[in-house]
Amino acid sequence: MPRLATPFLQTLCAFEQDSMQSVLIGGKWRKSLGEKTFQSINPATREVLPDLYPVSPWAEVEEALQVAASVAAEIRNWPGDRFATFLERYAELIEARAEDIIASANEETALPVEPRLKGGELPRTTNQLRQAAAAAREGSWALPTIDTQANIRSMLGPIGPVVVFGPNNFPFAFNGIAGGDFAAAVAAGNPVIAKGHTSHPRTTRLLAEAAHEAAIETGMPPGFVQLIYRTSHEDGARLVGHRFTGATGYTGSRQTGLVLKQAADAVGKPIYVELSSVNPVIILPGALKERGDAIVGEFAASCLMGTGQFCTNPGLVLLLASGEAEAFIASASEKFGAAPAGTLLGEGAEKSLRSGIAALVEAGATVLTGNQPVDESRCCHANTLLRVSGADFLKDPAGLQTEAFGNASLFVVAESVEELTAIIREFEGNLTGCFYSDTQGSDDALYDQLAPELRPHVGRLLNDKMPTGVAVSPAMNHGGPFPATGHPGFTAVGIPASLRRFGMLQCYDNVRPQRLPALLQDQNPGNAWRSIDCQWTQGDIG
Amino acid sequence: MPRLATPFLQTLCAFEQDSMQSVLIGGKWRKSLGEKTFQSINPATREVLPDLYPVSPWAEVEEALQVAASVAAEIRNWPGDRFATFLERYAELIEARAEDIIASANEETALPVEPRLKGGELPRTTNQLRQAAAAAREGSWALPTIDTQANIRSMLGPIGPVVVFGPNNFPFAFNGIAGGDFAAAVAAGNPVIAKGHTSHPRTTRLLAEAAHEAAIETGMPPGFVQLIYRTSHEDGARLVGHRFTGATGYTGSRQTGLVLKQAADAVGKPIYVELSSVNPVIILPGALKERGDAIVGEFAASCLMGTGQFCTNPGLVLLLASGEAEAFIASASEKFGAAPAGTLLGEGAEKSLRSGIAALVEAGATVLTGNQPVDESRCCHANTLLRVSGADFLKDPAGLQTEAFGNASLFVVAESVEELTAIIREFEGNLTGCFYSDTQGSDDALYDQLAPELRPHVGRLLNDKMPTGVAVSPAMNHGGPFPATGHPGFTAVGIPASLRRFGMLQCYDNVRPQRLPALLQDQNPGNAWRSIDCQWTQGDIG
Repeated sequence: MPRLATPFLQTLCAFEQDSMQSVLIGGKWRKSLGEKTFQSINPATREVLPDLYPVSPWAEVEEALQVAASVAAEIRNWPGDRFATFLERYAELIEARAEDIIASANEETALPVEPRLKGGELPRTTNQLRQAAAAAREGSWALPTIDTQANIRSMLGPIGPVVVFGPNNFPFAFNGIAGGDFAAAVAAGNPVIAKGHTSHPRTTRLLAEAAHEAAIETGMPPGFVQLIYRTSHEDGARLVGHRFTGATGYTGSRQTGLVLKQAADAVGKPIYVELSSVNPVIILPGALKERGDAIVGEFAASCLMGTGQFCTNPGLVLLLASGEAEAFIASASEKFGAAPAGTLLGEGAEKSLRSGIAALVEAGATVLTGNQPVDESRCCHANTLLRVSGADFLKDPAGLQTEAFGNASLFVVAESVEELTAIIREFEGNLTGCFYSDTQGSDDALYDQLAPELRPHVGRLLNDKMPTGVAVSPAMNHGGPFPATGHPGFTAVGIPASLRRFGMLQCYDNVRPQRLPALLQDQNPGNAWRSIDCQWTQGDIG
Repeated sequence: MPRLATPFLQTLCAFEQDSMQSVLIGGKWRKSLGEKTFQSINPATREVLPDLYPVSPWAEVEEALQVAASVAAEIRNWPGDRFATFLERYAELIEARAEDIIASANEETALPVEPRLKGGELPRTTNQLRQAAAAAREGSWALPTIDTQANIRSMLGPIGPVVVFGPNNFPFAFNGIAGGDFAAAVAAGNPVIAKGHTSHPRTTRLLAEAAHEAAIETGMPPGFVQLIYRTSHEDGARLVGHRFTGATGYTGSRQTGLVLKQAADAVGKPIYVELSSVNPVIILPGALKERGDAIVGEFAASCLMGTGQFCTNPGLVLLLASGEAEAFIASASEKFGAAPAGTLLGEGAEKSLRSGIAALVEAGATVLTGNQPVDESRCCHANTLLRVSGADFLKDPAGLQTEAFGNASLFVVAESVEELTAIIREFEGNLTGCFYSDTQGSDDALYDQLAPELRPHVGRLLNDKMPTGVAVSPAMNHGGPFPATGHPGFTAVGIPASLRRFGMLQCYDNVRPQRLPALLQDQNPGNAWRSIDCQWTQGDIG
């Protein structure tokens, strides 16, 4: 079946000027200066959706930056409560409009209304906004630190306008104008310029409408939240490196992320990128013997849930060769073959999955099941499992760590503990790494040997649990060494830590008492935890 | 007087093989594989010093990396106490050898023995080592964070081998093998590859000898501390971007720093660079009236101390045009003219200062005093003051923020508050920014208007105090927006915060209790502060 995109685009061009959606700049929805447009599709039908969205030219992006810089100056000393009030009202408005927002996301992403969008992602998103609000109001996130003897005081303060690029796979929870980076940037006291993902512009627009109204209702300056849908790669690079930009959050493809990272790094603008992760799962022999069947069920559920389109999808399973390992692989292949192939997020996701699998095959992996079209009327690809020997993995470790983002995973079967260790040492940085070990202790010695090898390659180390499902916990790390992210010291999920990415360290040396920010004055303005002379306390000084 | 460097190098070449100093690799002092050598000079006499130091080729650098990677794996789970013991013993050995170390630094840098080296920098350095030791032993630096309900626990763990490039201006306190970055990297549990600054190799060697012996005495693995003196720029870039490198600390020239930063950033390796800062001082009209004479004294002392070779040297003074401002400038010029020109750190520093001043002149500044050779027998340059109008500053703000590192400063005289504000808005990122205001309140309104403008451009905001003198305080920020550093969220001075640069965020999700690092187990292994369910406590769980 031919793709419908091209004819639709042609047909609609005549109406372009009338039906083009507005951008949100300077506190107003207004016609874009752009002349190019794009449309999203319904991945479940490949139907091109009617709305036309603008590609913003540089002049428009620059205007958003100028507005954001003025707003940043205006709100620099606002108490956290102001940002909290906005975030909470925004969460309420999202809930009030949940039905329309969910229907739109379902249409644009094919993610199911239940349980995913309605029961999972939307409540998670409003929960994140409310947790960020609570953190903003309380203030402990800023790590206020006071040396009473030297009268030196410091804390994280707002870093300036934050640009957020949201990914395709979480239309709410990582959305540029509603997700974790947005919530963290706002809670840290910064205006946001959101760049919506091109696969779900209508959903983003509906969220932005709620954000805009919440901003008006709670007295935020016009332009506190702004939205553009798309720019050229070149303008994206100018945006993240602009002198008015404070920092950038980016979740998406490795290729685009690296272009933006280079532009921001060149001028020392912090950019937090989340690029690629295969999330190795290592199943030790005792666990395979003890509960291989249960684990294969967990694995298939984790890898196929959401059609595998999670940053923490288990994309590589490392096993030590044995009969149980073969049985595990056979059982997994059977499950993958039997399960229906879910719909992917769009044609980009479909193309990316196929090319990821092709790269793995090119690097030496064999297809066990899947890797074929199953239903050309929608965006999808057969559930796919591949395998490669440990020896072959070690011949092309980079190629065999290509991320095949979606319902696919690679088994790596090592012949010995030595080979298994060598494989772990070749791992790139990942968001997560899991070990399954038996409950009777037969795997303990091997765990103790291998876990320290894996530890430096992963942000989050799990035991007896698949990596999908990223709790919004203060102790969460949704981060990891490159290429999982660009800096292994930060997390994109988990409050208050995720806020710290959008703060600059601001020190006050001998500054007169009445000129200090409230959080650094002798009297604690609320119940923030502060490190006073190296003791954490919620109390006052003196 | 002709420079002596060239003839000396030629004469000594014949003896090169015999007198070449060793590198410290893999726990042994050994002959370098390098064939090229360099020598340092005595900046007070321009005499070339006899020792020959090797330029390490890539094979040697790579070997150091391989050793460091093995060491990092070996020490990954060591308790902080092990690192503390090493750091404390190292501090003792430095003190035991202080006389020789100080004499060497004096010879290589011309910094005076008293008060600078003996009374100031050496005790500061051993103090830093001991503070870092205490932080390593206690563990709070790692921000242990526990969510008991979800059983998710995280902390900062060692990031892997740290490369430290020390600058020329602090032969002890920022030395690659003894200074703040070294102490922080070790306290965070990492091996260090130090790259000595080429202007004081003998001092660095003496410190490395003490570090090496302390490492042996305290049972650290061979190669825990390693030292090379020099590499090509190309090999430096390979080093910081190498897969075995965890992170890099660099303090030095902007040009070299940017080369290294680009190489590290391209592969997502954290690199903390400190590059350039003019440290604006803004003296408000009331303060000028009230105590202009006192402030001019403070300014001259701060700017000429250590021949102005401090990262926080006040290199730009911003004034509002008035009779008092003219008197201030005249008085400062007189003081600068009358004070003896100190000796600079070397021929590189001399050249750099002269070219910095030339760039300011080229950009439109006028020389008020100085800017001439005063004594060709030593490395020095006349104490120099320049001035430029606010209007001219705004014509070339980048050029007029060229760092003239040394005994030089630029007055910028604004005609109006509006112009003054516009100038502040053009400031690049700086380590520090100071305001002087009167004590009676006449400057308060202007302060309240201008301080928020300056705040986002500086890491440390001071009142009524010059920026030199960086206290090793837990609340210190020796950092700031680019180009002061590469990321405004981190500080290079101040413990425990400086340690966090060399940690990666390590999360444990559902990990079995006995497999957790001691700091994340239910029972607090010592008295570390931990955030348990968002409450900071030194207690246990349950």
